Amino acid sequence: MKAEFINPFLNSLLEVLKTMANIELSPQSPHLKTDRKSQGDVSGVIGMVGPQTKGSFSISLEKGLALAIYAGMLGDQADDINDDVTDMVGEITNMVSGGAKRILGEKGYEFEMATPTVVSGKNHELSHKVDGPRLAMNFTAPQGKATLEICFDR
Amino acid sequence: MKAEFINPFLNSLLEVLKTMANIELSPQSPHLKTDRKSQGDVSGVIGMVGPQTKGSFSISLEKGLALAIYAGMLGDQADDINDDVTDMVGEITNMVSGGAKRILGEKGYEFEMATPTVVSGKNHELSHKVDGPRLAMNFTAPQGKATLEICFDR
Repeated sequence: MKAEFINPFLNSLLEVLKTMANIELSPQSPHLKTDRKSQGDVSGVIGMVGPQTKGSFSISLEKGLALAIYAGMLGDQADDINDDVTDMVGEITNMVSGGAKRILGEKGYEFEMATPTVVSGKNHELSHKVDGPRLAMNFTAPQGKATLEICFDR
Repeated sequence: MKAEFINPFLNSLLEVLKTMANIELSPQSPHLKTDRKSQGDVSGVIGMVGPQTKGSFSISLEKGLALAIYAGMLGDQADDINDDVTDMVGEITNMVSGGAKRILGEKGYEFEMATPTVVSGKNHELSHKVDGPRLAMNFTAPQGKATLEICFDR
């Protein structure tokens, strides 16, 4: 796991949201996680398995931001985090990790993605159980916050 | 994805909890999921990737049952779902999927596991995003309920 692994995920997330939903996130600096938790109202989680390592990736969204992305991508309003919104979060999780997989594959880091699982529930917390470092990045937008987390075993 | 895939996970879960925590769960009948959600206060989620398919596995626990398993495994009391309890749920997720992996490997179904992610938050919901069937099984114990869910792409 190298700190530079975060950039393909970061760039992929910014690109997906800009292209698909016309939403621009402002990234803050990436940081090594010490508090062991990501918090949000809806999160997409996906496992990654490669010959060199394995890990997990998550993207957590506050409700307001999730609904704004839904409106931007689908052209439709949702009042709550319903099945259509969790489907969309699963799709974003696939697209972001798929984009990062392509970039990292070109650099010689191969991995396969599992299928995404979407968590909903106000202020739920995620704790990635790996024995390597956990990298997190926070984003802000007028509609709410997002947190991206990437964790690999050593 | 075959319905018989659930038994290795089911048996592995019963064995792990009996051996490690002296807790006996009563399984109910497995069923195909239609409501698309698992609910709990703490859940372990893990991705699986194999040459034939990929998917995700989760085990969701009510708080009372999670704390009882913690007390049984660690010989120590926890008042809430703290980091020690989520670590334990991550370990159980690894052990159950590892046990199922061995059994399924002997039958010719190979897969590798990613690393577990543990979700905490009262009444959070999980929605596994796969295009194959989703199998769920509910368990009861005096201390609370558990739900196991196994989902694979076609």
